[in-house]
Amino acid sequence: MLDIQNTKGDYKYKINKVGISNVLYPVTLKTKRGMSVPTIGNFSMSVSLEQDLKGANMSRLPILLSEFGENTLELSDIKKDLKTLIHAMVKKMESKDGYLEMEFEFFLKKKAPVSDFQGIMPYKCKVFGSLHLEPSTEYDFILSVEVPVTTLCPCSKAISEYSAHNQRGYVQVSLRYSDLMYIEDIIEVVESSASCDIYPILKRIDEKYVTEKAYENPRFVEDMVRLVAERLQEDNRVSWFSISSRHQESIHAHDAFAVIEITK
Amino acid sequence: MLDIQNTKGDYKYKINKVGISNVLYPVTLKTKRGMSVPTIGNFSMSVSLEQDLKGANMSRLPILLSEFGENTLELSDIKKDLKTLIHAMVKKMESKDGYLEMEFEFFLKKKAPVSDFQGIMPYKCKVFGSLHLEPSTEYDFILSVEVPVTTLCPCSKAISEYSAHNQRGYVQVSLRYSDLMYIEDIIEVVESSASCDIYPILKRIDEKYVTEKAYENPRFVEDMVRLVAERLQEDNRVSWFSISSRHQESIHAHDAFAVIEITK
Amino acid sequence: MLDIQNTKGDYKYKINKVGISNVLYPVTLKTKRGMSVPTIGNFSMSVSLEQDLKGANMSRLPILLSEFGENTLELSDIKKDLKTLIHAMVKKMESKDGYLEMEFEFFLKKKAPVSDFQGIMPYKCKVFGSLHLEPSTEYDFILSVEVPVTTLCPCSKAISEYSAHNQRGYVQVSLRYSDLMYIEDIIEVVESSASCDIYPILKRIDEKYVTEKAYENPRFVEDMVRLVAERLQEDNRVSWFSISSRHQESIHAHDAFAVIEITK
Amino acid sequence: MLDIQNTKGDYKYKINKVGISNVLYPVTLKTKRGMSVPTIGNFSMSVSLEQDLKGANMSRLPILLSEFGENTLELSDIKKDLKTLIHAMVKKMESKDGYLEMEFEFFLKKKAPVSDFQGIMPYKCKVFGSLHLEPSTEYDFILSVEVPVTTLCPCSKAISEYSAHNQRGYVQVSLRYSDLMYIEDIIEVVESSASCDIYPILKRIDEKYVTEKAYENPRFVEDMVRLVAERLQEDNRVSWFSISSRHQESIHAHDAFAVIEITK
Repeated sequence: MLDIQNTKGDYKYKINKVGISNVLYPVTLKTKRGMSVPTIGNFSMSVSLEQDLKGANMSRLPILLSEFGENTLELSDIKKDLKTLIHAMVKKMESKDGYLEMEFEFFLKKKAPVSDFQGIMPYKCKVFGSLHLEPSTEYDFILSVEVPVTTLCPCSKAISEYSAHNQRGYVQVSLRYSDLMYIEDIIEVVESSASCDIYPILKRIDEKYVTEKAYENPRFVEDMVRLVAERLQEDNRVSWFSISSRHQESIHAHDAFAVIEITK
Repeated sequence: MLDIQNTKGDYKYKINKVGISNVLYPVTLKTKRGMSVPTIGNFSMSVSLEQDLKGANMSRLPILLSEFGENTLELSDIKKDLKTLIHAMVKKMESKDGYLEMEFEFFLKKKAPVSDFQGIMPYKCKVFGSLHLEPSTEYDFILSVEVPVTTLCPCSKAISEYSAHNQRGYVQVSLRYSDLMYIEDIIEVVESSASCDIYPILKRIDEKYVTEKAYENPRFVEDMVRLVAERLQEDNRVSWFSISSRHQESIHAHDAFAVIEITK
Repeated sequence: MLDIQNTKGDYKYKINKVGISNVLYPVTLKTKRGMSVPTIGNFSMSVSLEQDLKGANMSRLPILLSEFGENTLELSDIKKDLKTLIHAMVKKMESKDGYLEMEFEFFLKKKAPVSDFQGIMPYKCKVFGSLHLEPSTEYDFILSVEVPVTTLCPCSKAISEYSAHNQRGYVQVSLRYSDLMYIEDIIEVVESSASCDIYPILKRIDEKYVTEKAYENPRFVEDMVRLVAERLQEDNRVSWFSISSRHQESIHAHDAFAVIEITK
Repeated sequence: MLDIQNTKGDYKYKINKVGISNVLYPVTLKTKRGMSVPTIGNFSMSVSLEQDLKGANMSRLPILLSEFGENTLELSDIKKDLKTLIHAMVKKMESKDGYLEMEFEFFLKKKAPVSDFQGIMPYKCKVFGSLHLEPSTEYDFILSVEVPVTTLCPCSKAISEYSAHNQRGYVQVSLRYSDLMYIEDIIEVVESSASCDIYPILKRIDEKYVTEKAYENPRFVEDMVRLVAERLQEDNRVSWFSISSRHQESIHAHDAFAVIEITK
């Protein structure tokens, strides 16, 4: 049977990335407290292709997922475990560069601030891993977490006789880090910087608390990214970060947003 | 050349709808003030297929769009003009039933409440038209308009010492009507029922106004649909309506919603 | 503390549905073979509200989810288990009508047709449950499964000297049923009616097989819905079904689709 | 009235970008043949904010759109005209750096290859413009065009007795260029590199043509990006490009993709 992909030819270009995307696969993650939580990963997996090769052996990519997790892909240290996976992928594909992206929801239990009612909060996450074997092994990994928060407008508060417009905001933190970092660490930084946290369950006693807390802690999009930046600047594990905050303003049909990116 | 679609056979079922979807086409609409505003329609067009026919002549559907508007499909009375289009479609397809759906953004100029700064607001709309030629001609048409508004929580206001959580809400009104009805009429009904309108441009003097107005007019999702229902009940042109209001609550990651549907 | 929601008033309308939507929650499903597979449910939960009541006690809805599954909502017989959940919801909300929708991915192992390489396939599903307590208890439940398949155009095959355009199609089957029905049953009906199945892993020996099989089994959108209808007609468990097939045609930027809906 | 945004403070960070996103606005574009075609732009507009400033004057951003186009934003040379707009934005916002992104559909008439039936094709486009005033004026502009095409698998063709799997592919070309470049130029490069073009209207005589043409011109994702790269390499107007091709494979639920990025 012909093997077109493996034929060699006089092609003009090396290909930066070739692979598969939009691959859904069950994943199990470890929380900071050591619990196993299931989720679904949306994967993109690719490798570089040498100039003289016609094509990549694509079928090896989903086979790799099956080999690493027959029923679910178990990740305890997400940065380290994905390095192992990408390394195996580069070897299996006889390539020198590998790329893996994975989007997933991370679920955490969260208690209401006063009533203590406990529910489950989803946080949308994404990771980007890339591994280069030549000239020497180089691994780059970015963890990105989106945290929904309440934001209340300082201008609206200052100029109005009462109340202030507030809304759901989404703060996305992307970072490179050296040692072990937990998704929970990033969530804590963002939530403690916002006008108020967002909760899965709030009784009236809690609703009073979050309404008043938000009013006492007004935040522009500019404030949000500056406050989170300050906290990440202090964290020695973090070598680079990009923070964006997007507020679904309750007084406009469009959103307000701000971005800070810093390489330490 | 073989014409597989037109072959007859001993099939077991008539087909309710067969056609094309996700067709993007330029459209021009008339505003209530008689201005022509361009937009983009996302179309779904289909017809019924008799039991003994193998397939429909799909290519006639995009040809019809070209025939009705070489550069853009001009609609002045949307209900009446689409009836003409669906009738032509049913005839061209040699069918007895025709269905057309179109999603589009409707753009309207809107002035800030105090400063009078004027910008353009988008409103997401959708129409559903269906025409049956037998036993006698029957035309059904639903116009659906989604209006973004500010909603402020009555409970949060009542129990908190100051402020109240508020957020962007989306009120979708779908209705059947006899005489001419303008998208602007529906927008007016919804915006005047909300805690406050949403605007494309707001200066600080306007922001004070909308903040205070929202606080003075708190609305649950339940209030929103009831207030809009009251107004549509009074409108003699309207024979059926369904109203849903969805609030992107600033204190939760999920939304709150309510629905009222009434056949007069 | 004031309880605005529970105040009574002279309102003009009963509200059909009031609740929360876009709620993500971990779910565990049972496969036909009895395996537990984790997934994520996107929930919409709502109840009716009497005419004289101001508002619903929204916070009880996410609390209900926590009560039914502290870490994950376990569903073995999805129709029966959701009836129990909706009944509890209606009681907890002191209402008479309850509605629950849940979207989720269902993961199944699937072997390549020749090489036997096994991977995991995702199938997008949705359920709609509604329970009315008065005048007498009435439970309605619709299960909807979307199955990706290969479809090859009979017309293109008939008129061309060689080859035929083919593409990914999505067949969505929604049905009402009496006895126990498995998602796997619906998938089997659709996959065996298509030009060819779609697989998570295909080696070259498999790719030859699926290419030739699709060419030998050409299917219009019309064929797809008729063939699936025939199979569901024969299944005595099924009392109503709606089948839609949407093909992402490889020769157009738009899609082709067909729909058959039958009440037995 | 207090002006919180303009208060100065001892903040720790300059903000890279602050502005508004998800702003829909009517736009008119010029085609290569000089026709005016209407569309809708989804805008993101932002500027940098100095370290000592509390916030940006957000309302000036939608005002700017109104000033540049009361009813529609007219763009004839998209790169040059957006530079003018971004420059005005930076000045109005009293900033030093400006960023504008705009997503839009570009509509072109396209004739069927044999029958000459003419319809309208949509192409999804995006532009990214950024202007820095210090230390000296620097303008960067990227034009990105997504072209849907037919792709037919060379491996499937080579190993199968007849036919080959084919599908809709989306080739996205992003590029930096010096002189005037038309969206039509990019579309032509991609369409002539694919297994076959995609058309808005195809009669049977055309369907035979495109089916056979695709079979005679098989393309892997790797082929697609290499062939387009070759053509862009030869175009002296282009200084940098990134090409990605994503094929919605008819035999898998996931997509195949490849990327080539080259700085000349």
